[in-house]
Amino acid sequence: MARTGAIIVAGGSGTRCGGALPKQFALLGGMPVLARTINAVAAALPGAEIVAVLPERHADFWKNLAARFEVAPHTIVTGGAERFDSVRRGLAALRTDPELIAVQDGVRPLVSAELIRRVAEAAERYGAAIPVVEAVDSLREVEEQRTETEGIAASHVADRRRFRIVQTPQIFRADLLRGAYGAEYRAEFTDDASVVEAAGHGVFLARGERGNLKITTAEDFILAEALLAAREEGAERE
Amino acid sequence: MARTGAIIVAGGSGTRCGGALPKQFALLGGMPVLARTINAVAAALPGAEIVAVLPERHADFWKNLAARFEVAPHTIVTGGAERFDSVRRGLAALRTDPELIAVQDGVRPLVSAELIRRVAEAAERYGAAIPVVEAVDSLREVEEQRTETEGIAASHVADRRRFRIVQTPQIFRADLLRGAYGAEYRAEFTDDASVVEAAGHGVFLARGERGNLKITTAEDFILAEALLAAREEGAERE
Repeated sequence: MARTGAIIVAGGSGTRCGGALPKQFALLGGMPVLARTINAVAAALPGAEIVAVLPERHADFWKNLAARFEVAPHTIVTGGAERFDSVRRGLAALRTDPELIAVQDGVRPLVSAELIRRVAEAAERYGAAIPVVEAVDSLREVEEQRTETEGIAASHVADRRRFRIVQTPQIFRADLLRGAYGAEYRAEFTDDASVVEAAGHGVFLARGERGNLKITTAEDFILAEALLAAREEGAERE
Repeated sequence: MARTGAIIVAGGSGTRCGGALPKQFALLGGMPVLARTINAVAAALPGAEIVAVLPERHADFWKNLAARFEVAPHTIVTGGAERFDSVRRGLAALRTDPELIAVQDGVRPLVSAELIRRVAEAAERYGAAIPVVEAVDSLREVEEQRTETEGIAASHVADRRRFRIVQTPQIFRADLLRGAYGAEYRAEFTDDASVVEAAGHGVFLARGERGNLKITTAEDFILAEALLAAREEGAERE
């Protein structure tokens, strides 16, 4: 496996889960979400240099919190206003000149080692790779942007077979990702793949996993706890 | 509330969860998924006439299974090749001339009474209403249909803010739904809203719930068990 660096983006200050603590710090199965995410990446990519990008006001809090748990070695940098800025600062902080760079959501602690390695191998081969899963539910496209989801909106069925739900880690050849992040920020840069694509490079769609949950709401926490418990039970049986 | 009929579509023979038993019959928290779905609809819409549409080869199996649990009164009809045919047979089986008709996936047992009533009220007002939730993950549209999700597909970012994930129950004024289902089957009829829209009627987008899970895979079962346990715990505390 190529020399790899990982940027864990934990820049959100969202408290949609309720409570004052941003969700990346909440305890999931007795360990902070972000600690689990960092450890999952470290386990899948031994020797990878890991940089966690955090809001400035949370950096010290995280250092104190992380010291109380077994968290794989990582450096901390403070994030910017947009996710784009945060990734850029993460890129600047990498010191080991990796060949591949993985960008991972801090709130995806349940990502499996198999998934990470599968995406990394594809990135080594194709330059850029992201994990995707198919949509199970029907999809509908609204013609007008609304702040609330309620309304007799002009909308139409979208063929769900044409869509993929995009996860992380998104992994790239370092030169490619660095080059792409040389661009000016644009509103349509919603993830790293979109930045790389805007620079003219295609992205390989690798197989994601439905269990690679992004923890956004209180309900997601319940789901994540359940998945974790089921996995640990499975691991004990083996 | 208007007189309501409900068609529970349990036509799938999918065994993606593993095991020989279609997922609508599997035990969730000690009770068949379909029984939970029927009871959820019955509890939300007291007095509603309920018709369950099942594959012909499973009708007797279900009668025997249902007799062993407390399942709200419902009649059973056998389904057709496509979901469209199954709903049509469900429509023909309704005997009480309801003013509103709800169509519910048999594998959505966790739908809440609040959600069902919210959609029913919107349907009474607007003629057609469906529950939707926003997408949390990024979305990507592939330009080419593939059987596998892997590939260096031509694909591009889709603005997730423009998309809604569609759930059930989808609820309609009876005359509207019956009229729409008079049409010839078309491949783009992926749900009832698409049938009604093809007949020229707009659809109200009501607020869905992320917990209104469609049970499709083994992992969904784990999630559903966890949500159920968390809810029952919450109910006991009250």
